[in-house]
Amino acid sequence: MTDPVADQLRDVLDGRWIELRQRARKELPAELMLAPAGLTTEEHRDRTTESLLKLAEMGFGRAGFPTAFGGELDYAASCVLFEMQAFGDLSLLVKTGVQFGLFGGAVARLGTERHHATYLEDIMTGRLLGSFAMTEVGHGSNVQALETIATYDDSTKEIVIDTPTEGGVKTYIGNAARDARMAVVFAQLVTGEGEHGVHAVLVPVRDEDGNPLPGVTIGDNGPKGGLPGVDNGTFSFAKVRVPKANLLNAFGDIDDDGQYVSDIDNPNRRFFTMLGTLVRGRVCVGGGSGASAKKALAIALRYGATRRQFAASEDQDEIVVLDYLAHQRKLLPRLAKSIALSFAQNAVTERLQELQGGPADAERDVEGQRELESRVAGLKAVTTWHALDTIQACREACGGAGYMAENQLTQMRADVDVFTTFEGENTVLLQLAAKGLLTDYKAMWGDLDVPGMVGKVAGQVGEFIVERTTGRAGIQRLIDAATGRDDETATDSLAWAGSMFEQRADHALETLGNRLRKATKDNAFELFNNAQDHVLFAARTHIDRCVLEAAVDAQQGMSDGPAKDLLERVLILYALSSIEEDKGWFIEHGRITTARSRAVTASVNSLCQELREQSTTLVDALGVPEELITAPIVR
Amino acid sequence: MTDPVADQLRDVLDGRWIELRQRARKELPAELMLAPAGLTTEEHRDRTTESLLKLAEMGFGRAGFPTAFGGELDYAASCVLFEMQAFGDLSLLVKTGVQFGLFGGAVARLGTERHHATYLEDIMTGRLLGSFAMTEVGHGSNVQALETIATYDDSTKEIVIDTPTEGGVKTYIGNAARDARMAVVFAQLVTGEGEHGVHAVLVPVRDEDGNPLPGVTIGDNGPKGGLPGVDNGTFSFAKVRVPKANLLNAFGDIDDDGQYVSDIDNPNRRFFTMLGTLVRGRVCVGGGSGASAKKALAIALRYGATRRQFAASEDQDEIVVLDYLAHQRKLLPRLAKSIALSFAQNAVTERLQELQGGPADAERDVEGQRELESRVAGLKAVTTWHALDTIQACREACGGAGYMAENQLTQMRADVDVFTTFEGENTVLLQLAAKGLLTDYKAMWGDLDVPGMVGKVAGQVGEFIVERTTGRAGIQRLIDAATGRDDETATDSLAWAGSMFEQRADHALETLGNRLRKATKDNAFELFNNAQDHVLFAARTHIDRCVLEAAVDAQQGMSDGPAKDLLERVLILYALSSIEEDKGWFIEHGRITTARSRAVTASVNSLCQELREQSTTLVDALGVPEELITAPIVR
Repeated sequence: MTDPVADQLRDVLDGRWIELRQRARKELPAELMLAPAGLTTEEHRDRTTESLLKLAEMGFGRAGFPTAFGGELDYAASCVLFEMQAFGDLSLLVKTGVQFGLFGGAVARLGTERHHATYLEDIMTGRLLGSFAMTEVGHGSNVQALETIATYDDSTKEIVIDTPTEGGVKTYIGNAARDARMAVVFAQLVTGEGEHGVHAVLVPVRDEDGNPLPGVTIGDNGPKGGLPGVDNGTFSFAKVRVPKANLLNAFGDIDDDGQYVSDIDNPNRRFFTMLGTLVRGRVCVGGGSGASAKKALAIALRYGATRRQFAASEDQDEIVVLDYLAHQRKLLPRLAKSIALSFAQNAVTERLQELQGGPADAERDVEGQRELESRVAGLKAVTTWHALDTIQACREACGGAGYMAENQLTQMRADVDVFTTFEGENTVLLQLAAKGLLTDYKAMWGDLDVPGMVGKVAGQVGEFIVERTTGRAGIQRLIDAATGRDDETATDSLAWAGSMFEQRADHALETLGNRLRKATKDNAFELFNNAQDHVLFAARTHIDRCVLEAAVDAQQGMSDGPAKDLLERVLILYALSSIEEDKGWFIEHGRITTARSRAVTASVNSLCQELREQSTTLVDALGVPEELITAPIVR
Repeated sequence: MTDPVADQLRDVLDGRWIELRQRARKELPAELMLAPAGLTTEEHRDRTTESLLKLAEMGFGRAGFPTAFGGELDYAASCVLFEMQAFGDLSLLVKTGVQFGLFGGAVARLGTERHHATYLEDIMTGRLLGSFAMTEVGHGSNVQALETIATYDDSTKEIVIDTPTEGGVKTYIGNAARDARMAVVFAQLVTGEGEHGVHAVLVPVRDEDGNPLPGVTIGDNGPKGGLPGVDNGTFSFAKVRVPKANLLNAFGDIDDDGQYVSDIDNPNRRFFTMLGTLVRGRVCVGGGSGASAKKALAIALRYGATRRQFAASEDQDEIVVLDYLAHQRKLLPRLAKSIALSFAQNAVTERLQELQGGPADAERDVEGQRELESRVAGLKAVTTWHALDTIQACREACGGAGYMAENQLTQMRADVDVFTTFEGENTVLLQLAAKGLLTDYKAMWGDLDVPGMVGKVAGQVGEFIVERTTGRAGIQRLIDAATGRDDETATDSLAWAGSMFEQRADHALETLGNRLRKATKDNAFELFNNAQDHVLFAARTHIDRCVLEAAVDAQQGMSDGPAKDLLERVLILYALSSIEEDKGWFIEHGRITTARSRAVTASVNSLCQELREQSTTLVDALGVPEELITAPIVR
């Protein structure tokens, strides 16, 4: 029954973490990972908290924490486990993400030893449940403008946390409505000397019995579009006092004399450095949504290969729906993109570990960190939108059956929806990615609102740099090996598609740079704003290129054989589908002729028909744990 | 406070039914129309049934029924009321649609006086709740292949309803799981002479206490992706006997001698004629989803005009998010499309009344009926996808707040999802629309599987006809009045855009005809299947043209002034956005130059910025009842 091609493809998709993923496939039990359909909100919340504690008990919370305090300091592993968990109930995924990733991650990376020694063991075991209280009613994307105030009172050596306005109420905070005993509260730090920008402070929010502590008002966000098992809520603070030691002080501290001290003088740089250490959350969200898309595809492709509808003529059986080109076009380019995205996801996961996995790392490779942040921002946007779009296409491809909760698609879609918003709103993230490409962080953009892209920078933009891309060698070899003239290379080839991806991304970025260079203090907002669609295009096409490069790199590294050949065909389908979507741009910019443009569409169609024959192998290769696919339509 | 431009636009959008819509806005009370968030499934079902009965009591169920039996025989009014109801809870909408439209509509239009006299009053008052039992586990789109059997037993003058296999179980049937006392069951009718194809039979399914009748097994489909207040369920029948009189006999009957009789000899034509009388369901679904999109836009546009994020520089306020081009691009082209679609919706609603509103109509205008069915099929697909996409864009545009159930967007999106599937799966419907365009119904396609498009037709296709389109005069005048050369007309004009829409649709259809003409018996499936993306393109572009024509027709009929001018700008944005999406096609086919293509994008951007200034007026004009917008983010 085993399919060696599927096994080999699954291994290459598993990347450096074959063993870890296999273990997760075996050890994450379905009865824990799946929530039955039709639970009430309270039942779902109960169940999610219980499952979180069981996962903690099994040790699944330890991967991302320092070894000195019982962790494994393997950020890559924590991201990979997050991906694997995303094959199950996404409420549980997000709940664990809040506890171990956001809350625990902030204590680990923004705090210092005094916090680690006191809290990390309890966080990893789930004895201390906590929240990551950043977003406020008035401030989602523009976190620098948070209104919560943390005023240092030197007379008592305490920090006073206060919510001055309605707009400063913390909201959508996971773990807040029911479970959190403590919160990492992001607030404007003020000392006698003045304001120091946003910092994080540990604030106890409930007593042992779960009652809000004095001065802390806790609300419940109530029913949401999805993630019913996550207790999102609100916090507001009425001059709540905590000891000075509760300041998470890795990047800024108050010394014994009540003076603010920091290694990073520029408050903006300090803020973005703090945020940067939290990039793992975005890596995880991208990976988790990518896994969801794979599960949806596994369900829809299997169903499509058995469901019949309409006969070619009266004396024949009805036709299997996946044999219809329209059905193939719905599912197979999305499958190809899912596979391609996996390699890009593996690449950023690996890079994260390289950059942050060491002991004293924060400032070690500023340029590398900046690049990673930019890449991760863009990839998170592209992957979460892909997941949302794919799960919906799969739902529709399964017809009325797809709408039944038991077939698993609708809850996934409802849950993944907000992945496009949390950990950075996608449109904002794409602009952040473009910004990372356009200019050198320290030199110019450091003091700028993200992503307003206006103001002080006017007149300075233009010396854009092209980001180093990790997987470039593989595709460059292919392109160089081709005839050298785009119009002589076959459409249906990775070399040609790779060249098109490069040209698209380069041209988008170059022309954007030229456009923004014209900014002056007076026209800056208008100029930047008018270019916003161009900014988004530049970011998206850059990510497309990174994805193809990472995927080709992995494919080129495989030993010759049918698995390598199949993956090549899949990546060509991914690339040509993307070129087809942008065919207007390619012709408009003289990169392809109209004849070539038609050839692209013809190739997409024939690749769909070709890969339809391999759909069982490809679904197998996605590595979705069999016992997590409970949809009756494919059992 | 009143805005005369908004009032005038609202009136033109209200079409011929200004008074009816105004009445609905006033009389449909919010406490009835809106369900609170966070209800359990059972609570939502209870509430929905109660609200249905109240609506019936208020007389809202009478519009679509014959006057002789207490109805108003105004199909247009019933569709318009459905649209207006769609501004409220969509579970209630669908529940009333099942009761008055599907169940009641089938009794009215497939039944005859004996059924009308016995049942209609009870249906309109809600004393008799019923189901429309068409779909089976194995047969969704291909309804002709239904497996349920209705065997006539002449010895007892009864019809025996039987479910022979698992695949023949009726499923996703609204009203089934809890409320229905009777069902219109679609089944293969068999008499002593043989099989007569699918017919509808009235079958009592529950006794007065709500218990299933002997031989009837009823199941609950359980939790779904949305529409929690609708009790979808399953029926299967074990040789259930009903009197012969229960056959809905408008198109086929069993006479006193037990002989099958029908005015329509061809069983396929008979079947499609029966289905055709039910076209109103698709008109309603399109209208209802269109209304949902408008409500979502009203919420997101109002929020976008108040929400601020990021300042241009430190000394300024944060910028209103709707001032960002990226935000405008998310919402304004979708607003423009929503407005354009309204006119097309009005046009099919009016046409429905013309064709079916008379007393003895079934065969009166076969060609007109065929055209209406084709148009409605395509428009339903285009509008429901537009609604789904728009509600999602609105959700994202409202960020985390958009994900909170209280802000109304997520439930709408979850509910509208299945509108793309029920009353005809969208991809199948687009093929049906294309089929309607390609050839004369009676002459060639009558015997063919819908939409297999293969088999008997091979070799016959090609003599396609272009559908008469109702609103053509207005746009034709504009085109004729322009310079006559496309390359000299301004991009930013309805005349040019209209000409592009025409060329796109004509060329798509012509080339499709040429392609399919090559079909032979042997290559038919392959040839049709390979052309499936072309078929979908031809249908979609045809509908786009119909939409623009209907909209221009309405706009041209307005008295000169700012409202007419504003609508013109809105329609240009709609048209140019569509051209921009297909720019690859237009350049590929030599319809626009690359310079013109760039000009289109520039015009879309500047129209977005221009119309952003009118967003309050445009939202007002959408006519969403104020008290049904309860989202706290816009109160």
